Amino acid sequence: MRATLIHGAGDIRVGEVPDPVIRRPTDALVRVLRSCICGSDLWPYGSKPRVEGGDRIGHEFLGVIEEVGSEVSGFARGDVVVAPFVWSDGTCDFCREGLQTSCRHGGSWGRDGVDGGQGEAVRVPQAQGTLVKLPVGEDTVLLPSLLTLSDVYPTGYHCAKTAGVNERTTVTVIGDGAVGLSAVLSAKLLGAERIILMGRHKDRTDLGREFGATDVVEERGDAAIERVRELTGGDGTHTVLECVGLEPALDTAFGVVRAGGTISRVGAPQYEKVAFGFPGFLRNITLTGGVAPARAYIEELLPAILDGKIEPGRVFDRTVKLDEVPDGYRAMADREALKVMIVP
Amino acid sequence: MRATLIHGAGDIRVGEVPDPVIRRPTDALVRVLRSCICGSDLWPYGSKPRVEGGDRIGHEFLGVIEEVGSEVSGFARGDVVVAPFVWSDGTCDFCREGLQTSCRHGGSWGRDGVDGGQGEAVRVPQAQGTLVKLPVGEDTVLLPSLLTLSDVYPTGYHCAKTAGVNERTTVTVIGDGAVGLSAVLSAKLLGAERIILMGRHKDRTDLGREFGATDVVEERGDAAIERVRELTGGDGTHTVLECVGLEPALDTAFGVVRAGGTISRVGAPQYEKVAFGFPGFLRNITLTGGVAPARAYIEELLPAILDGKIEPGRVFDRTVKLDEVPDGYRAMADREALKVMIVP
Repeated sequence: MRATLIHGAGDIRVGEVPDPVIRRPTDALVRVLRSCICGSDLWPYGSKPRVEGGDRIGHEFLGVIEEVGSEVSGFARGDVVVAPFVWSDGTCDFCREGLQTSCRHGGSWGRDGVDGGQGEAVRVPQAQGTLVKLPVGEDTVLLPSLLTLSDVYPTGYHCAKTAGVNERTTVTVIGDGAVGLSAVLSAKLLGAERIILMGRHKDRTDLGREFGATDVVEERGDAAIERVRELTGGDGTHTVLECVGLEPALDTAFGVVRAGGTISRVGAPQYEKVAFGFPGFLRNITLTGGVAPARAYIEELLPAILDGKIEPGRVFDRTVKLDEVPDGYRAMADREALKVMIVP
Repeated sequence: MRATLIHGAGDIRVGEVPDPVIRRPTDALVRVLRSCICGSDLWPYGSKPRVEGGDRIGHEFLGVIEEVGSEVSGFARGDVVVAPFVWSDGTCDFCREGLQTSCRHGGSWGRDGVDGGQGEAVRVPQAQGTLVKLPVGEDTVLLPSLLTLSDVYPTGYHCAKTAGVNERTTVTVIGDGAVGLSAVLSAKLLGAERIILMGRHKDRTDLGREFGATDVVEERGDAAIERVRELTGGDGTHTVLECVGLEPALDTAFGVVRAGGTISRVGAPQYEKVAFGFPGFLRNITLTGGVAPARAYIEELLPAILDGKIEPGRVFDRTVKLDEVPDGYRAMADREALKVMIVP
């Protein structure tokens, strides 16, 4: 089959790889209907050392069950399923607690002999714990929104949820990327009435307003902090959803969080240390979040998508064929595209 | 009157200061029955630059009302009261939320014309919001335990509470000082069944065991981390109560916290940055805590002390007269004494 390979920074190619087959009784084979490119794929795209032969890439996909192993029940050939961005057994203590990202028998796509998501098909380990069956046909118009359940939407939701967003909390969302916009949508869903979105791409912040943002702050750094403080009587917001992962974004988060408030971060940290000493201690700030256990949230987030109440799939503003994936990466890296969907 | 003054690092003296008088209608005058020396007083004792004439010091005290301003109600001359370690109006939004340490009209003892706690008397600003009346006479044997309500016990409690300790969480307490032992007591009170105390002073860890610690780890650094992991099947504990404030203690906290777990810190951070990048993000660790709003917890913690069910005052292992305060500081700094009570 054909799949996406990363050979090093800036070098994405689509090539032939072995067809996946069932290797373990807990596996399933999924033919990919839709996959997509993640903001986090841009980190290796920006800096990965050269790899002979290329590494598989992609961790967001939905598709159709082609075959299941003998120990997988509840799934049949033809079922449409979505896969969260890590696979997990669904039975260990971490999975039962809703922290599938720390599953004792789980792992990542595209590593250790497991297929990446940006290809024609995927062997899914621990299929019964990992996959979620979607009550739709493979031709549904809901595919883009359902695909967001793989990563971007639950990641935004994890951010809002761990920050403790509710109807009484004001919210700042840092970042107008697909995760930031998903965080806006999630904050709105959790009842927040005041959602300040920080971003400077008008088409993105416009979508953010449609998703629920009440204010947009285009400034950066100290000017952005000042603006949010102006908007909040000098106090900042109870919760801050940091959806970027860079140190200046986190510094901004500390600048706009209200005393006693919570910063949640879901942008993979591109830093080692956090400026969180005495000043943040004196103000009782909490820093939480982390890599989102998407699997834990899919059932909860699914109904509103099926009902058409929300359309998280609007974060996709470009669709490419599998052969065009290299250009999809380029477009996202150049900020021409917000988030790119792939049709194999 | 006589009060404690700090003239610089290592230079504590007791000297004459002006008698406090009511200055504002919201003030009260309190004759001090008991005060004490805090671990955080040792920071200026260790490093404060020389100050001409000396600065007032001390922020934990209980005493007897001598006089109240015209706008203070609910308190009368002769009432025994405890003061939390910051004063606060009790009416602003932060106070109503239980974050009196961020009170919009509050402040610290020993600064800006407000008396320190380690003296014969104190003018208490915002007395009605700050003080809590204790239903005891000034000769009660409960004074030491009631005095802990000023700081050390609610600080330990804040640590356990913000960490989310309950009957289902395992706990590591880092630090066998008075705050650490108060955190053990608090974790036990909140239902924790497994409480691992890190400390190497046998008299202190013995008291920790009496307060509820089920295991004591004497090792430090990597050896301590390894030991806690051994004790917890390799996983670490759900909650970590960091009661030291030094960077190595926080590093240890990250080493012993279970994935998805929470570190709460109440030791005033003696560092500016925290090593909390990708690894902690990947494990969904939360860092919370901060300076404890003691005032928020006093009513909740009082009954068990009055009933004699708990004796947090056992952290005091030395009592000095006011004139002996300099030696009290020395004894705590030299770790001869765990916590020193002062009888003016």
